[in-house]
Amino acid sequence: MGMAIDLAQKGKGQVNPNPLVGAVIVKDGTIIGSGYHEKYGELHAERNALAACTQTPAGATLYVTLEPCCHTGKTPPCTEAIIENKISRVVVGAKDPNPLVGGKGIEILRNNGIEVITGVMEKECLELNEVFFHFIKNKTPFVLMKYAMTLDGKIATYSGKSKWITGEVARAAVHETRNEYRGIMVGVQTVIQDDPLLTCRREGGRDPVRIICDTHLRTPLSARIVASARRIPTYLATCSQDEKKIKRFEIMGCRILQISKEGNHLCLKELMDRLGAEKIDSIILEGGGTLNFSALKSGIVNKLQVYIAPKMFGGATAKSPVEGVGIEAPSQAFQFSDRKIKIFGDDICLEYYRR
Amino acid sequence: MGMAIDLAQKGKGQVNPNPLVGAVIVKDGTIIGSGYHEKYGELHAERNALAACTQTPAGATLYVTLEPCCHTGKTPPCTEAIIENKISRVVVGAKDPNPLVGGKGIEILRNNGIEVITGVMEKECLELNEVFFHFIKNKTPFVLMKYAMTLDGKIATYSGKSKWITGEVARAAVHETRNEYRGIMVGVQTVIQDDPLLTCRREGGRDPVRIICDTHLRTPLSARIVASARRIPTYLATCSQDEKKIKRFEIMGCRILQISKEGNHLCLKELMDRLGAEKIDSIILEGGGTLNFSALKSGIVNKLQVYIAPKMFGGATAKSPVEGVGIEAPSQAFQFSDRKIKIFGDDICLEYYRR
Repeated sequence: MGMAIDLAQKGKGQVNPNPLVGAVIVKDGTIIGSGYHEKYGELHAERNALAACTQTPAGATLYVTLEPCCHTGKTPPCTEAIIENKISRVVVGAKDPNPLVGGKGIEILRNNGIEVITGVMEKECLELNEVFFHFIKNKTPFVLMKYAMTLDGKIATYSGKSKWITGEVARAAVHETRNEYRGIMVGVQTVIQDDPLLTCRREGGRDPVRIICDTHLRTPLSARIVASARRIPTYLATCSQDEKKIKRFEIMGCRILQISKEGNHLCLKELMDRLGAEKIDSIILEGGGTLNFSALKSGIVNKLQVYIAPKMFGGATAKSPVEGVGIEAPSQAFQFSDRKIKIFGDDICLEYYRR
Repeated sequence: MGMAIDLAQKGKGQVNPNPLVGAVIVKDGTIIGSGYHEKYGELHAERNALAACTQTPAGATLYVTLEPCCHTGKTPPCTEAIIENKISRVVVGAKDPNPLVGGKGIEILRNNGIEVITGVMEKECLELNEVFFHFIKNKTPFVLMKYAMTLDGKIATYSGKSKWITGEVARAAVHETRNEYRGIMVGVQTVIQDDPLLTCRREGGRDPVRIICDTHLRTPLSARIVASARRIPTYLATCSQDEKKIKRFEIMGCRILQISKEGNHLCLKELMDRLGAEKIDSIILEGGGTLNFSALKSGIVNKLQVYIAPKMFGGATAKSPVEGVGIEAPSQAFQFSDRKIKIFGDDICLEYYRR
């Protein structure tokens, strides 16, 4: 199963909104075939593994990270292929949360006399597809809040300079993540201040769709994001009703999402619904302190990545990663759990899930 | 040597300003004696190990974390005891940086026909006595900057509340450190706001000497620190010349250190010299953001402990661990190295040395 998980990872950035799946076929103690879901719309892992078999898979055991599908989507059901190839045992990592499958795949296999074992390395298999599972259940993007800060909690110096906080190894990891996630979201303040492109600078990487939270439509028409909107899909989420202004952005290739107002900001929950409807299953939130606080408060954050560099900026007025009004008593703090510590050269990355 | 290091640790909080030392005596592959420096003024590790021997140490090997002393201090030189007891081989962790010893101990042993091996687990042995080595060389306290913050770099909520950021396990570790360090230093702002006692709440622990940085002598006479100054040594470092005010604090049992002004603050370098002269070899700096920034800028910080709790407070006005003016460009950042990551329940502690 460990090998199947490793194989599944190879599909990162290529299969959304499908899940990452890996499969290994073992006969008489020998691996006779393996495969993974390589690209959205193409063959599933099970069929790739079967096709790769060096001898007949009849009587073999199939290890697969996710319950085999039993419905016809872009490809015919995998359960059929497993039955046809006379696999005698299937070991499943995680059950499929897709209501179209939901245990039915396992049922069909068992009804056809195939032994099915479930829940092997289940935690790892669930985590592998945390985005997929979330999206299937909630129809809204899985949101990863990500920021880089110093040991004294600063995301920039008092003068607003932030290049660079982390080292090259950590920055490369960020571009890996940009390749894996479907969208990237920032606040208009970041666009005005840093004029970023928010592309994936990994070789062969896929640029994420860009989403700007811009309540009052203050994005400069001259911004690099706007100028490149014909090449890389770009959404401006706004409460503005200024049709003339909106038209200008649309001419440049931007998609405008008109969102209701909630207090002084656009309603992030509604924005997530809209982005979900656009089939955006995952978002990296690289907000400034204001947007980050709104995101936490509105409850849209699922996961957290905090890169920490071994340096300090100081500065009573230097920006910190989460600002806004803040909470009043420590007991009201936003809580995180399931810590993971990753090392990137001199920097570390703390990963948590929102509790 | 690993066992000798473990033994040495047992002297923590009892031996300053002496070093922590452990010793193990091995004969024919069997440990025949071991010991450590248990209390300031009492026997050194080598003599304790020799006294504990279950058979004659003649011809045995002595493992000792620090070069044996060859001068008469509170106790006679250890080299004499080693020679008298006919030890044939001495394995040394770190050389003694004390100018009164400085390799002479090793020389004396060799001149007496004893084989001496040096530098075994040297890094660990040096770290064991980082405080001692620093103090011998610089005659100023070894300064550990310590703070606890949230994942978004806050040391309190916007309303100033900070109880609690970390959990019980981490807070217990802090009291272990208070037991080990000779002094604890805070700014007057912390005294006014939190009215802390700064004692060691570990059972059987030793309270650190308290040092308040109070440029304008604003410490309230009613503060708990002042009220307990007869029981626990307390220094007020100030630029104030107000003899009447000073007298009042002295009557309460406080020691006043009059320090020169440097900019708007008292000169921390001068304060360190004065505290060094008072035989305070180590200080935990639990400053607020202003004092922490001044300490970094003046170059007195040697080590850093950042406790991080898996929660966020948010708040644009919430306090962060290092404030002051701050640095302007990321390239001017204060740098740290030699990372260690420690886990305390849900919290982590990042440890670094100032580069």
